[in-house]
Amino acid sequence: LPPKPAKLGLCVACHGEDGTGRAPGTPHIGGQDRLYLERSLADYRSGKRQQVPMTSLANALQPRDIEALAAWYAAQPGFVGGGQR
Amino acid sequence: LPPKPAKLGLCVACHGEDGTGRAPGTPHIGGQDRLYLERSLADYRSGKRQQVPMTSLANALQPRDIEALAAWYAAQPGFVGGGQR
Repeated sequence: LPPKPAKLGLCVACHGEDGTGRAPGTPHIGGQDRLYLERSLADYRSGKRQQVPMTSLANALQPRDIEALAAWYAAQPGFVGGGQR
Repeated sequence: LPPKPAKLGLCVACHGEDGTGRAPGTPHIGGQDRLYLERSLADYRSGKRQQVPMTSLANALQPRDIEALAAWYAAQPGFVGGGQR
């Protein structure tokens, strides 16, 4: 696994450290495509994509945080179980 | 598994029938959270979220298609392998 990102703490309440969404409506991001994760965070930061609470959280990220977080979650084992939480 | 959605054919080129993204940058949607998938498709349809080619594809969907596709992909076994394609 890549090193734990400095800003991981911003994500775990909703996404956990492993990327499994903690509530219905919250996407699973563990094992997600790294480029997609990078683009999503960049889009939240630029405002192209808007969603509470992601917009304000992404504003706290530098590009290197975005890369570290995307790499971290993409490297997680992903989720099995067909959407059963 | 739920029945195969009538409009699944619109999705498989990039997402496959099982929801595993076929190219870097394309998100995995197999085993994703059903509500998140419904909201994403609805946001593409309403224009709240914009992304080629999703915007034009979502415009071809009725609400019942959105429900069927979200249910189908959420019920897939999801992806394992930490982002390795």
